[in-house]
Amino acid sequence: MRRDKFEPLGVPDISNREMDWTGSARGDGGRVTALDRWLARQLLGAVGDPPFRIVLWNGEAVAGEHGAQGVSAELRFADRRALLALLHDPELHFGDLYSAGRIDIDGDLLDFIETAYRALDAKIADSHWHQRLSRLRNRPRRNSLTGSRSNIHHHYDLGNDFYELWLDREVMQYTCAYYPDPSMTVEQAQVAKLHHVCRKLRLEPGQTVVEAGCGWGGLARFMAKHYGVKVRAYNISHEQVSFARARAEQEGLADRVEYVEDDYRNIKGDFDIFVSVGMLEHVGTDHYRELGGVVDRCLKDRGRGLIHTIGRNQAGVMNAWIEKRIFPGAYPPTLGQMMEIFEPWEFSVQDVENLRLHYARTLTHWLERFDQNLERIRDMFDERFIRAWRLYLVGSIAAFTTGSLQLFQVVFERPQTNDLPWSRAHLYTAGSHGQAQ
Amino acid sequence: MRRDKFEPLGVPDISNREMDWTGSARGDGGRVTALDRWLARQLLGAVGDPPFRIVLWNGEAVAGEHGAQGVSAELRFADRRALLALLHDPELHFGDLYSAGRIDIDGDLLDFIETAYRALDAKIADSHWHQRLSRLRNRPRRNSLTGSRSNIHHHYDLGNDFYELWLDREVMQYTCAYYPDPSMTVEQAQVAKLHHVCRKLRLEPGQTVVEAGCGWGGLARFMAKHYGVKVRAYNISHEQVSFARARAEQEGLADRVEYVEDDYRNIKGDFDIFVSVGMLEHVGTDHYRELGGVVDRCLKDRGRGLIHTIGRNQAGVMNAWIEKRIFPGAYPPTLGQMMEIFEPWEFSVQDVENLRLHYARTLTHWLERFDQNLERIRDMFDERFIRAWRLYLVGSIAAFTTGSLQLFQVVFERPQTNDLPWSRAHLYTAGSHGQAQ
Repeated sequence: MRRDKFEPLGVPDISNREMDWTGSARGDGGRVTALDRWLARQLLGAVGDPPFRIVLWNGEAVAGEHGAQGVSAELRFADRRALLALLHDPELHFGDLYSAGRIDIDGDLLDFIETAYRALDAKIADSHWHQRLSRLRNRPRRNSLTGSRSNIHHHYDLGNDFYELWLDREVMQYTCAYYPDPSMTVEQAQVAKLHHVCRKLRLEPGQTVVEAGCGWGGLARFMAKHYGVKVRAYNISHEQVSFARARAEQEGLADRVEYVEDDYRNIKGDFDIFVSVGMLEHVGTDHYRELGGVVDRCLKDRGRGLIHTIGRNQAGVMNAWIEKRIFPGAYPPTLGQMMEIFEPWEFSVQDVENLRLHYARTLTHWLERFDQNLERIRDMFDERFIRAWRLYLVGSIAAFTTGSLQLFQVVFERPQTNDLPWSRAHLYTAGSHGQAQ
Repeated sequence: MRRDKFEPLGVPDISNREMDWTGSARGDGGRVTALDRWLARQLLGAVGDPPFRIVLWNGEAVAGEHGAQGVSAELRFADRRALLALLHDPELHFGDLYSAGRIDIDGDLLDFIETAYRALDAKIADSHWHQRLSRLRNRPRRNSLTGSRSNIHHHYDLGNDFYELWLDREVMQYTCAYYPDPSMTVEQAQVAKLHHVCRKLRLEPGQTVVEAGCGWGGLARFMAKHYGVKVRAYNISHEQVSFARARAEQEGLADRVEYVEDDYRNIKGDFDIFVSVGMLEHVGTDHYRELGGVVDRCLKDRGRGLIHTIGRNQAGVMNAWIEKRIFPGAYPPTLGQMMEIFEPWEFSVQDVENLRLHYARTLTHWLERFDQNLERIRDMFDERFIRAWRLYLVGSIAAFTTGSLQLFQVVFERPQTNDLPWSRAHLYTAGSHGQAQ
């Protein structure tokens, strides 16, 4: 049962549109000329001269300014068009060309991407124009009410059974886990993450919680089951909401957890607690003030909240390929940008924790499981999809290990609340992943 | 030995300048007219109708819209000019008039100020124009190199023996203490604060630390003594630096702690750690990017830092009277504004903790000790100074209890550092105020 849901991943017909200036390029790669060698060296220079060797379609190797010394990976091109496309926009086209098998890596893929990121970082530090340019070129897609629905469908409706093959089997979380003990399994770390979130929110039995963007509903069920609260959880992914409802029924939680297939902007009701784990990436900075207004509207006078999101140290766009092929409309904010959610409504930020390396570990665990289930995934999707998905997972690991992405958990309170703990020790006293109650 | 250092505190001669429109106002208070009663009611309305009664100079009481019901305090005016000045700019003139004894409060001063803040907050939430207006009117003084020196001299050079009378006797900290156990003394809580800061910085013996704005040098000596690091600490207050150097000599720490009487902008050297506790309030948002540049310049590749500062939930100026009479040039930033220190230089924010209520408790302890030492303080300063200083301490308690001020501790790292702890539990495992090593 091959799926056709990942069509957008197909490499655009580069030769006919963006690339028609390539002239003599031929599908079989063409004869290697002095110009090709020069272009290969230009490419290495353009990405900050990482210690890579380029192998052209006739098997000829081209080294950068490092020469043959300390080469850590080989980048193999199947044809000239692939080389030209990468020169044109390496960030955007690498993913497509790699997925199509027209570029391949000899050497460890993670090591290759980490090295490339670090080389690019050093280069960008020298010349900020590159970043400014790329900011203009790769504006994320709009997250209007209908835009959001289409963007979310693109990624989250790929099929629950696909995600079940490689996410944790305990609470089905597609967000950063928490490894207070780095030897934890992904199941233990996802449960620890949910406890960490619940403790930060200081949940009390009988409280009401609203969740914005609930995935397959794992956090909402967990809160109801272990912390005795009532949860209303919103999500615009139809497949996820169906799954979440079925699970709540199975687990006898349907009276305490309600899943609403609707946009966060349509949240209704008054709640003690607001929580959102891994939705902000899809909101877009233009809507942060509006999101804060939703929280202000639905939160009681002494209410508190938590937002968990991928972020950045410095404003910049998502990797262009990820934004185009994997997460349309996604944008990881800086902490400064996040404050546009809180400051207009005078929310008081109480606690920010950066869990960057926890996401690298989570992704590593997902990738291991993805690879273990490769045969079953091959029954679902074609090779191009599989190469793209692996690249997305590996590239995301590299983004977190090199510090190009961050993971922020932000706890906020109404400004008048004086019911605050005297220290954060309570987050650490119940054991690394034990229950609070 | 009365001191003349607090001259700026004198109430401006209102009748001759700002207030010459008051017409018939006389020093003895004058006869109470229907107009005075109307003005008193206007005043209560202007500050959001708190449950106060105004008592005029002839003993006549005027209630606001609450009538006589639930009145929590009486505000006594000695003369008409005081009433008019308060109407003209309550935030600015209240402090001067109270200090001069021309306004007095019947009832608990803290309760009075907290109630006034909450009433004003509710009113401001309704009409943001007031805040915008006050923002224009009360711009903080400039913190150029010479401006900073004069601003800091105004407050911190009042005399070390004055501060010794009411600050803690252990580490002489004039910043928010940390009360993980709320029954702690101010000495215990200041020591706990210093440990908390050192643990957040994960100090290791042999590391080098630079401190920007070191007060009487307590943190620098503490770090050298208990954590085995070498510290270079900057401060532009001459009296504080002299005190700090003498103490370091006495304690045999002079080889490990160097105090430099200079501006943070002139910091020189390469350090493992940057720390600044309670200086940012005096830096001014215009200089945040520059401060970040100083940190970037003086911090090694794997270095980290911590900034501890009074802050706000929403951008706005410091209380006008405090800025004018107590802390010239002071400005408490929002977290969003603070990010201007970090984002341009790609520092990675790892941890933010808000200790707002800890500052209310610290101030309460300072006030108790101030009151216990009133007789000795009377030998140093006149009654007007004492009323002003008590008002400043009580008003600051109210600002923290009502959420008008926050206290942020921000830990940041270089973006490439992967030597990060897997949880913050290490901050809480060495006992509430025990030593880490």
